[in-house]
Amino acid sequence: METITVELGARSYPIHIGEGVLHDKELLKRTVAAQQVLVVTNDIVAPLHLSALVDTLPLSVETLILPDGEQHKDLATFERIIDRLIVLGFHRDACIVALGGGVIGDIAGFAAACYQRGIEFIQAPTTLLAQVDSSVGGKTAVNHRAAKNMIGAFYQPSAVLADTATLQTLPPRELSAGLAEVIKHGLILDAEFVVWLEDHIEALLALDAAALGHAIRRCCEIKGTIVAEDEREHGRRALLNLGHTFGHALESLGGYSRWLHGEAVAIGISLAARVSAALEMIELADCDRIDALLKRARLPEGVASGVDVEAMLASMQLDKKATSAGLKLVLLDAIGHAVVKPAPPRALLHEVIDRHICA
Amino acid sequence: METITVELGARSYPIHIGEGVLHDKELLKRTVAAQQVLVVTNDIVAPLHLSALVDTLPLSVETLILPDGEQHKDLATFERIIDRLIVLGFHRDACIVALGGGVIGDIAGFAAACYQRGIEFIQAPTTLLAQVDSSVGGKTAVNHRAAKNMIGAFYQPSAVLADTATLQTLPPRELSAGLAEVIKHGLILDAEFVVWLEDHIEALLALDAAALGHAIRRCCEIKGTIVAEDEREHGRRALLNLGHTFGHALESLGGYSRWLHGEAVAIGISLAARVSAALEMIELADCDRIDALLKRARLPEGVASGVDVEAMLASMQLDKKATSAGLKLVLLDAIGHAVVKPAPPRALLHEVIDRHICA
Repeated sequence: METITVELGARSYPIHIGEGVLHDKELLKRTVAAQQVLVVTNDIVAPLHLSALVDTLPLSVETLILPDGEQHKDLATFERIIDRLIVLGFHRDACIVALGGGVIGDIAGFAAACYQRGIEFIQAPTTLLAQVDSSVGGKTAVNHRAAKNMIGAFYQPSAVLADTATLQTLPPRELSAGLAEVIKHGLILDAEFVVWLEDHIEALLALDAAALGHAIRRCCEIKGTIVAEDEREHGRRALLNLGHTFGHALESLGGYSRWLHGEAVAIGISLAARVSAALEMIELADCDRIDALLKRARLPEGVASGVDVEAMLASMQLDKKATSAGLKLVLLDAIGHAVVKPAPPRALLHEVIDRHICA
Repeated sequence: METITVELGARSYPIHIGEGVLHDKELLKRTVAAQQVLVVTNDIVAPLHLSALVDTLPLSVETLILPDGEQHKDLATFERIIDRLIVLGFHRDACIVALGGGVIGDIAGFAAACYQRGIEFIQAPTTLLAQVDSSVGGKTAVNHRAAKNMIGAFYQPSAVLADTATLQTLPPRELSAGLAEVIKHGLILDAEFVVWLEDHIEALLALDAAALGHAIRRCCEIKGTIVAEDEREHGRRALLNLGHTFGHALESLGGYSRWLHGEAVAIGISLAARVSAALEMIELADCDRIDALLKRARLPEGVASGVDVEAMLASMQLDKKATSAGLKLVLLDAIGHAVVKPAPPRALLHEVIDRHICA
């Protein structure tokens, strides 16, 4: 097991990464100290990992099994969690453990942030996407039908328990979705890591334990450092949204069910690169290199037929990086170096999207 | 105009108190700097104060008028505010101004805390209760049908604009409800202020400007100091809940419509004093003195016929000060000195409630 610390002063917390951390009785005893614990998970993860976790936890705990899928990450499901906490008579010193992927972490984290104005919260991510990205950094939210993650809070967990053994049961599509966020971390600020990924993408797809361990640790290091510098995204943290302005718009247009989050982000990364090339910030060869890596990770890099480009541009205006001064985009001025820029003219965006993804 | 600062480091903010602050163009220009502004108010306050505020603000603003009353402080109304912000295309640098009493401040503040994970928020309290208590300190929330303020956030405003002229239009019942929180501040930690209130309660009921100004300033000083010491209520801030464990239970049992918040708190203060006397922390004469002051403020100090004592005790268990170790109560060991104590045996609570308020 390896441990990385996210440095946030009094709210610093550890990320424990390794095979079997959810079966480590000593670790769970130290980490989950509350007397009242609710484990929130979904109907896909529950049969695979819930009973093992419940058996390993030091005290008897309550469980809540939600339906799987981004389309359930809404206020109605949030209210189900709150209702359950109330019925259980949970107090302010209670704890929620989120066992699952990014959806479970986001919604359970938002419930923890709001119940009695904030109770303890522990992330137990079981997907690659959650282990490399969404479980770290304290962004919690639910979706609005018009736009993604519009209702939420910055609310840090007290610990992250990333058990890499859970990835062995991950469906291939979910594994690829997680790789989109892994590739994103490299593109943002670690060109060497991109080269490493180009050398190890097949090993990752084959669930090679050493390769997965390295990728997860490197992503957590990159993300933890940026979050420590800029917790509430007043500046640098926005870089982590490479591909997300496009991706969120696609997810919303797809009713939060057509693409997995990571798939939409992959298309978004490809689009961000094409926009960067159109602005002569990078070469077209860089775009092709990025698309090739996404494709080898079995991600949709440039295929999104049937998307209404104008509807997509309208949805992008709701992006949280937009201010009253206009939309901003995370673009690349090199592989391994992202920057935040005011969006180029709408006509250019329209053309890039139209040419690239609707082909 | 007087200004008190709540000292919270980078999140410190001013409370401006005075007659006409909402008509002060210079002050509003300095205070409301956002390009996108939504004023949230209710259907009682809007005809009295909304157009004056809108005319005084430097830019054109949007408005949202909610139905009046604690029974609307729920997730459905919260969602109405969020929907409106989305439809308006408001960005993360937008601002919500809460114009109204405690209900408007709590629900608009919670919407500001959650929209895009947090936008700017300004309190413009128009009731005595909001000016002396709820607009200061950053507690925002909505109610759950089972218990009050169960879903919320600690989220500080960037400024409080307390225009004492708005109190001239306050219905007498609302004025008295505000006096319950004024009296509470004295009982918690300022015996001299209690004596001052005993000398000036009629002046306050007569809306004497000097008396109101003094009472509002003193309450904001007391509350601001406690909040600066303990923003998230890990300790001392709980003292501000004198009367509220009983009061919240009464409000919930009354469907959030039988009593105004301040009325329920008045009954709760009286009960907290009686419990303190039963534990020999204060004298019965102190209870009579407190009841006399509440009565002179035209508050229900000991009358709550038809309350099911067992249901009230059950609702009190959901109090946010309760932990898995049990319920806690704010009690008095002198007039002007509150303390947090583990609750006495249920039988004693039952007897005090039964004898005192169901008589």
